[in-house]
Amino acid sequence: MPVVVQNIERADQTLIDALGVCGVATVHEAQGRKGLLASYMRPIYSGARLGASAVTISAPPGDNWMLHVAIEQVRAGDILVLAPTSPSEDGYFGDLIATSLKARGGMGLIIDAGVRDVRDLTEMQCPVWSKAIFAQGTVKESIGSVNTPVVCANELVNPGDIIIADDDGVCVVRREEAAVVLEKARAREASEADTRKRLAAGELGLDIYGMRARLQDKGLKYV
Amino acid sequence: MPVVVQNIERADQTLIDALGVCGVATVHEAQGRKGLLASYMRPIYSGARLGASAVTISAPPGDNWMLHVAIEQVRAGDILVLAPTSPSEDGYFGDLIATSLKARGGMGLIIDAGVRDVRDLTEMQCPVWSKAIFAQGTVKESIGSVNTPVVCANELVNPGDIIIADDDGVCVVRREEAAVVLEKARAREASEADTRKRLAAGELGLDIYGMRARLQDKGLKYV
Amino acid sequence: MPVVVQNIERADQTLIDALGVCGVATVHEAQGRKGLLASYMRPIYSGARLGASAVTISAPPGDNWMLHVAIEQVRAGDILVLAPTSPSEDGYFGDLIATSLKARGGMGLIIDAGVRDVRDLTEMQCPVWSKAIFAQGTVKESIGSVNTPVVCANELVNPGDIIIADDDGVCVVRREEAAVVLEKARAREASEADTRKRLAAGELGLDIYGMRARLQDKGLKYV
Amino acid sequence: MPVVVQNIERADQTLIDALGVCGVATVHEAQGRKGLLASYMRPIYSGARLGASAVTISAPPGDNWMLHVAIEQVRAGDILVLAPTSPSEDGYFGDLIATSLKARGGMGLIIDAGVRDVRDLTEMQCPVWSKAIFAQGTVKESIGSVNTPVVCANELVNPGDIIIADDDGVCVVRREEAAVVLEKARAREASEADTRKRLAAGELGLDIYGMRARLQDKGLKYV
Amino acid sequence: MPVVVQNIERADQTLIDALGVCGVATVHEAQGRKGLLASYMRPIYSGARLGASAVTISAPPGDNWMLHVAIEQVRAGDILVLAPTSPSEDGYFGDLIATSLKARGGMGLIIDAGVRDVRDLTEMQCPVWSKAIFAQGTVKESIGSVNTPVVCANELVNPGDIIIADDDGVCVVRREEAAVVLEKARAREASEADTRKRLAAGELGLDIYGMRARLQDKGLKYV
Amino acid sequence: MPVVVQNIERADQTLIDALGVCGVATVHEAQGRKGLLASYMRPIYSGARLGASAVTISAPPGDNWMLHVAIEQVRAGDILVLAPTSPSEDGYFGDLIATSLKARGGMGLIIDAGVRDVRDLTEMQCPVWSKAIFAQGTVKESIGSVNTPVVCANELVNPGDIIIADDDGVCVVRREEAAVVLEKARAREASEADTRKRLAAGELGLDIYGMRARLQDKGLKYV
Repeated sequence: MPVVVQNIERADQTLIDALGVCGVATVHEAQGRKGLLASYMRPIYSGARLGASAVTISAPPGDNWMLHVAIEQVRAGDILVLAPTSPSEDGYFGDLIATSLKARGGMGLIIDAGVRDVRDLTEMQCPVWSKAIFAQGTVKESIGSVNTPVVCANELVNPGDIIIADDDGVCVVRREEAAVVLEKARAREASEADTRKRLAAGELGLDIYGMRARLQDKGLKYV
Repeated sequence: MPVVVQNIERADQTLIDALGVCGVATVHEAQGRKGLLASYMRPIYSGARLGASAVTISAPPGDNWMLHVAIEQVRAGDILVLAPTSPSEDGYFGDLIATSLKARGGMGLIIDAGVRDVRDLTEMQCPVWSKAIFAQGTVKESIGSVNTPVVCANELVNPGDIIIADDDGVCVVRREEAAVVLEKARAREASEADTRKRLAAGELGLDIYGMRARLQDKGLKYV
Repeated sequence: MPVVVQNIERADQTLIDALGVCGVATVHEAQGRKGLLASYMRPIYSGARLGASAVTISAPPGDNWMLHVAIEQVRAGDILVLAPTSPSEDGYFGDLIATSLKARGGMGLIIDAGVRDVRDLTEMQCPVWSKAIFAQGTVKESIGSVNTPVVCANELVNPGDIIIADDDGVCVVRREEAAVVLEKARAREASEADTRKRLAAGELGLDIYGMRARLQDKGLKYV
Repeated sequence: MPVVVQNIERADQTLIDALGVCGVATVHEAQGRKGLLASYMRPIYSGARLGASAVTISAPPGDNWMLHVAIEQVRAGDILVLAPTSPSEDGYFGDLIATSLKARGGMGLIIDAGVRDVRDLTEMQCPVWSKAIFAQGTVKESIGSVNTPVVCANELVNPGDIIIADDDGVCVVRREEAAVVLEKARAREASEADTRKRLAAGELGLDIYGMRARLQDKGLKYV
Repeated sequence: MPVVVQNIERADQTLIDALGVCGVATVHEAQGRKGLLASYMRPIYSGARLGASAVTISAPPGDNWMLHVAIEQVRAGDILVLAPTSPSEDGYFGDLIATSLKARGGMGLIIDAGVRDVRDLTEMQCPVWSKAIFAQGTVKESIGSVNTPVVCANELVNPGDIIIADDDGVCVVRREEAAVVLEKARAREASEADTRKRLAAGELGLDIYGMRARLQDKGLKYV
Repeated sequence: MPVVVQNIERADQTLIDALGVCGVATVHEAQGRKGLLASYMRPIYSGARLGASAVTISAPPGDNWMLHVAIEQVRAGDILVLAPTSPSEDGYFGDLIATSLKARGGMGLIIDAGVRDVRDLTEMQCPVWSKAIFAQGTVKESIGSVNTPVVCANELVNPGDIIIADDDGVCVVRREEAAVVLEKARAREASEADTRKRLAAGELGLDIYGMRARLQDKGLKYV
């Protein structure tokens, strides 16, 4: 059953980059509020924002062997997405593997487990979103799979899906929906830019969105 | 039952500002170690410190409609305090509502739930203390109340109570106790300034506070 | 039973400093993946890295009296390690005690409980690794022990053991094993420096570590 | 500030008993979905169901002295409600205090902390809803208050408020609203009895509640 | 996007029943240690064990409207599997909906959220595996989907997949793999029956499984 | 470093049994409120109570190989105490190993990780105190140690230490302190029996323990 899928389809890089610029909150809204990984997935440093193509890893708890296998499958613009087969906080990823990942053009890591060497990773500007920071080492005894669908932090991720990540967390966009989602995200941004101006000028959301009548219908009383 | 209370009493702004300068730990001690919100309430960025007057919101889980209603009640120097009626991590608050809040002179947000757009909020210097950072969107389907007493992160907050918040967390001071608490906080600061000097010079707390005899009475042995 | 042990043995300061430079992940690996405190022990600010000699404290929940007692036992290069006898998040340690600790040459604090005044502690560059940041005050009513073995965040720490701490967490090294661990840590660093170069040049871990045959033996398929 | 309020008002015992029979879920709905303590409050054994009048306790963390003080204030039909001033899991309550409580006619305990001797408490049929079961002992060093308003498990409880507790958790009813809530709870039960029969006979909620049109309006598609 | 899929394929009932008899631990092993829902999914009472066909529900947080919609899609032998679109502990399910579910021949509920009326559900012998027990009510304001793939407690569940649940937790078996998994589960049971006898007679696993040589190779020392 | 220590010293069986009868809360108090494992260690079924001699296991996360090794070291009256070297919830122990353990006269298991087959274990009356119930399987790839000191659920346990466990949790008694602790535990029980009678007769702890004067000194006011 353990398998490495070598040729996966990826979305167009222009789409991926453009979605990355939109950011997690906007993309998540644009695709109908789906695809968000659990809120415990936090960046190891602030300010990183990216769009990238997922290379997925299913790995045993406390065993990072498949990370080494996955690196070989990475192309420029990819991000690793690791889901352990049982919950783990162990530090699967550190500065050595990060060096290798960077050398292959990889963008970073999404991991429903732990990482270590975070000072080095920060200096290298290798962004990671993880469940834990933990120096606990791993073994290389049991195999898993690369580029099969995984459930990571309560969300399904397929190889070649698009990962959007920033300080708000991590969101996955299906490869085949990327173009439509981008269109909606941009429309949303345009609309928000206008709303932002009006709000900054002191107008109220109650008026801009025309909420007063509906609130009254629902029975809200002002006293 | 859902209601918006429009005219609430606020403490004197000078008092509020002065308490804010004292900070959470000092104010909390000065009022007899009460009023602290749960320790999971964390700032979205470091270094913010404020005193502000509470505009309270009771909102359904995953529904941020009442935030829009509350904004209209905000005056310069106010802070929003949102307590969901059932636990939620959803992102009730983002950069658009923050823009509106700022335009009204609002100081920030205390929320026993989630926020999003934290990179934008950080750039805008709109401080938030929250339970979670989560891009999950909310709906606008059910109403709640504004400016009624709420329990937020295990602490009762009344509209017009004073919120003190910094990197240590969030503390609430009853409006009617503000003047007395400020006096005690300042006395505490004065006393601490003196003690700090003595400690910095190498004196021991054991001697400054005269603890040695009482420790001996309790049975502490040195070997 | 409550006791203060006044003369404890410490490791050679040169060893301690050298281990601190290696950092948590390297030291933890070098000593066979043991000695790591639980992953919830986090630094109050990023970037601190140290090696120090442990002065241990066993204290009742919500009672920081023994911290004052322990300060007197601190020598230059020591770090306090506090384990409460029952779980607590209370703020045992703030800027006043930190001032005293610094005046004695103490390096910082490891505490399986809470701290406060973190803005001041950050300004003072007094590093702390803790379970919580919480302004909740403590009392001085019950005594405990100083410089007896404690279990802190699921790890045994003896007085005079060496504490290594950085952004990855906290690791303890037995005093009598320090020299051997340092030797192994340095060997590891030397080896990693070489590997890092090869990885940066694009070589794969699969090849550097010769993993391909063993993966095939385990049954990994490429498709 | 620490105080024992000796004469508190209680609701009519008939009301209290009748609300207890309705159970938590029904009462919670009947009063507009408010008053529920946090879901981590669990019974130490299954099957207990009660209504009782609250005697409140505000106690320091890890210090059960005020429990002894509170027992004297207990009348037949009362229940103790203990909120620590800082989070604690310590075992404040065991079989000895339970014996005393029972001798006074007390009904049980609601505690946002720990209890112990649960085998004995189960044999005595002394129901407790708690955050933890933990044998950790407490001290008797610091005082608190009895019969002042407390926030327990994120909910405000006043002395004399009515506590409803069963396998679903714990709910508080304001004393002055008890009669109205009981009326609504009974109306709800009557209505549910009818609905239950129809559902048991195979009718669908979709039809009984007339939901089909509204679902269609919202855009639900059947495929 | 919200949709109700009315005709889903189900596995053969004989297969489903037979897998249910095997139990979670055996089935999970038999299919290569996959398909297990998170360990926080606990039965509301002990001793229930079942195999059933999944009717899936994707529902908004704190909104149980889709449960009513799903009931209509239930056939004898089905089990409901509800995944909220954002984390929730609210009580989506109680004795009324359970009555309706039972009337349709439904077997029970798997829910990554809360339930209530657990005393009634226990009396009715309507088994539920949930994240929480919480009386908190829900609304009927927003729609979701029935019988689309969902991620429930970190595991993907498709409509028509087979759910195995007992005191050990919950496991999902893909419909198309059911026959093969059953065969392996039974082989496993047969093998275990023999091993159990030998172990009961005092033989050691070390000898039965021939582990001694491999342990020696790994370097285990006996002292 | 991995080692199996074959000949460990055990306390006198009469002492062990007698301590088991006293129960966790009493023994914990009798030895000065120390030795309690973390409160998340819960029995898989209610009502078990035992005293037993510890056979300790240090095992890798998700790897139960050392359990098989440890069984060979078990004598009648022993209990296994397993501490993983990194946090894990996996099901290390099920009905097969339990059968083997029982055949050797073993009493049960204390495990800072998961177990499975809990229905079978309950039927066999094989008591387990664990962090989790989880069907997740383990591997047999990496070795650890048997009968070396371990930290289990934040408490140090040496081989041959005495484990007391019941519905309140788990407590460890040092072998060399067993006789003294038993004496104190029995004295405590004798004293409590008398107090229990007085409390049952309606006397107050305030009077029995003579607390009134000290409460007044501390400043408690009755109003």
